[in-house]
Amino acid sequence: MTLHEEIVSMGRHASTASRKLATLSARRKNAILQAMADELEDRRDRILEANRRDMEAGRAAGLSGAMLDRLELTGSRMESMIRGIRNVTALKDPVGIKISRWIRPNGLEIVKVRVPIGVIAIVYESRPNVTVDAAVLCIKAGNAVILRGGSEAIHSNLALADALQAGGTREGLPEYAVQIVRNTDREAVRELCRLNEYLDLIIPRGGEGLIRFITETSRVPVIKHYKGVCHVYVDESADLEMAIRICENAKCQRPGVCNAMETLLVHERIAERFLPRMAQVFRRHDVELRGDEKSRAIVRDIQAACEDDWYAEYLDLILAVRVVPDLESAVEHINHYGSHHSDAIVTGSEKAARRFTNEVDSATVYINASTRFTDGGEFGMGAEIGISTDKLHARGPMGLEELTTYKYVIYGNGQIRE
Amino acid sequence: MTLHEEIVSMGRHASTASRKLATLSARRKNAILQAMADELEDRRDRILEANRRDMEAGRAAGLSGAMLDRLELTGSRMESMIRGIRNVTALKDPVGIKISRWIRPNGLEIVKVRVPIGVIAIVYESRPNVTVDAAVLCIKAGNAVILRGGSEAIHSNLALADALQAGGTREGLPEYAVQIVRNTDREAVRELCRLNEYLDLIIPRGGEGLIRFITETSRVPVIKHYKGVCHVYVDESADLEMAIRICENAKCQRPGVCNAMETLLVHERIAERFLPRMAQVFRRHDVELRGDEKSRAIVRDIQAACEDDWYAEYLDLILAVRVVPDLESAVEHINHYGSHHSDAIVTGSEKAARRFTNEVDSATVYINASTRFTDGGEFGMGAEIGISTDKLHARGPMGLEELTTYKYVIYGNGQIRE
Repeated sequence: MTLHEEIVSMGRHASTASRKLATLSARRKNAILQAMADELEDRRDRILEANRRDMEAGRAAGLSGAMLDRLELTGSRMESMIRGIRNVTALKDPVGIKISRWIRPNGLEIVKVRVPIGVIAIVYESRPNVTVDAAVLCIKAGNAVILRGGSEAIHSNLALADALQAGGTREGLPEYAVQIVRNTDREAVRELCRLNEYLDLIIPRGGEGLIRFITETSRVPVIKHYKGVCHVYVDESADLEMAIRICENAKCQRPGVCNAMETLLVHERIAERFLPRMAQVFRRHDVELRGDEKSRAIVRDIQAACEDDWYAEYLDLILAVRVVPDLESAVEHINHYGSHHSDAIVTGSEKAARRFTNEVDSATVYINASTRFTDGGEFGMGAEIGISTDKLHARGPMGLEELTTYKYVIYGNGQIRE
Repeated sequence: MTLHEEIVSMGRHASTASRKLATLSARRKNAILQAMADELEDRRDRILEANRRDMEAGRAAGLSGAMLDRLELTGSRMESMIRGIRNVTALKDPVGIKISRWIRPNGLEIVKVRVPIGVIAIVYESRPNVTVDAAVLCIKAGNAVILRGGSEAIHSNLALADALQAGGTREGLPEYAVQIVRNTDREAVRELCRLNEYLDLIIPRGGEGLIRFITETSRVPVIKHYKGVCHVYVDESADLEMAIRICENAKCQRPGVCNAMETLLVHERIAERFLPRMAQVFRRHDVELRGDEKSRAIVRDIQAACEDDWYAEYLDLILAVRVVPDLESAVEHINHYGSHHSDAIVTGSEKAARRFTNEVDSATVYINASTRFTDGGEFGMGAEIGISTDKLHARGPMGLEELTTYKYVIYGNGQIRE
């Protein structure tokens, strides 16, 4: 069987499975999730052994310490995956919910009802826990899932996916509901991108290169975020204490994530009072500051920023700083250089807040709060499959509801069109 | 300027316009629409003159009578376009509506608010009224629009789009909010498909070839329907009078549209009573029937159907007929051969209705009503930009709401993440 035939066959099987999955009750799906969690527990040693093989291969291939850390499964990481499944079990099933309902003058009753999307492919890198998290969310929302993880985690991913399918099968999970692509070459991703006959959605998670490749190749709809170049804009009317607390949190609490601040924008009327104090706080956290001329005239140890810095997602203790003449310039900067992810204003003015939230074209816009809250858990969604900076279907954190679509069910008693 | 540079420049201008459009009030947008309608009235003669040039070129190029009819603008068609604009003016503005709102334990208030998508391209063929309908709906929902009609209607389209932009500008429509691509080669469509930096959505309307080309080429999200292969399934428990009325309407009332029935499925237990009477009705309408062996054993003048007939969108007085052993086979037939558009069951059984609507994977599923109701107007949306057989973002008839997305606006008072 060629790679093409293999992927097409996976798609066909997933499609059949998805039709069965779509009709399962919430109770049935929860029993399946429960059995998946039990099976992971039962196979714990086997899974850890598979992970050791990946770790050895990774060490031999010279993976960095950070990558090895992301790859490694431990007893406590297994427990946290299993706890994650039980959390998803507790979430409300979105399938079958009536989104709206109305009756037409001719008596037709139109019901817009939430249904699964169908077949979803998740393409990701290194972390094996994505295998479990993504599969479980897709199944809970009634979708079949095709998983394609990175080569470095292939043994772990196969062991995990096998356990999920085997456990689920005991409780009525259709065959081929959870499949894993064994081929870890880029060519396999290309085949998935062409599988529009069977695949309804691809969600890529990983580096910008992978995501860009999929976006530019795919005939299947893609929901993604490239990166998080998040801004905090400190307005002239900001409460300075609050601004310092928010900026410290947005930059330093966890700098390696997509909702951390990468650029600080400061209104020029407040810059001389705010920047020296803020710089002192950042110094304590060893944050490297790269600023425009105006900011460097105020704080002398800020390095010179170049054009690339305004586009940069550092994911590190580095921050770009710019002094802007007004709110309009801040908005323009964010819309031009940003990634439409999460941006905040700190302000005492309701009018400024309204302009900022209306005009900044991002998935989440904050007034007087840290950008770090863009997260399915923090939003109260209970779980998250990813964050979308796209505008179609889902924007911002994506939970169970975003893994569904709707259909119209129309009840008549013989109506015909005149 | 190369074609590539021209399209990129249009995209950049549209993007700037879209940011201004997004902040316009409902009242402002309605004044713009009103001025557009007035301008069409004022320029009526000029527009009809442009259309005459297209008609002459069309006749010289040997366009069919049906195509010339679709291309032609008349006084009454102009009036109907203008009335269409006034109807859209009366519709409720979806922008700014709070979809949901909740407060987190830490006091953060999360508001999910409806906003415009941004820049939308509409790629269509022949009918010049699409220029007006599509532009007006996009603008009402706060989006900039790039229109790309067919070569045969280029003079009409340019005259119409010029009138819309000029009229709108008097009431504050941003420059470049309505643009038309002058190049009518396929290469211009390809350039639009690559414009993912500025374009948020492409909606193709036209033949399957055009739509397939865009789907397979585009890096920009596409919402579409290829075709409408719609089914009516007459269940064993159907009220036969009702079934005959619904099937007659679904096939004959307007056979050339996407929500007309193309295949009739009949439960074998009812076929001998139903098919002869149904065939008689179809004979009166000169409908050509193409059936499987079982149907031909019952009604002798049904021609033999081949495999292709089950996939066919005839858009004509031709109907494929199949006798099925049970509801399950009907569902399988529809999911396999259909186009996920509109499918109906005629039944007296609630259980059969529930199974059918749960298992048929289509945008709209009907119980005891004609498939002909799949239409924005019939749904009460007031207007329609198209019908989606996709599953992401919009499914079924697409009105104003489907031309919007959402953002999260989050109100805090200094919250930081622990």
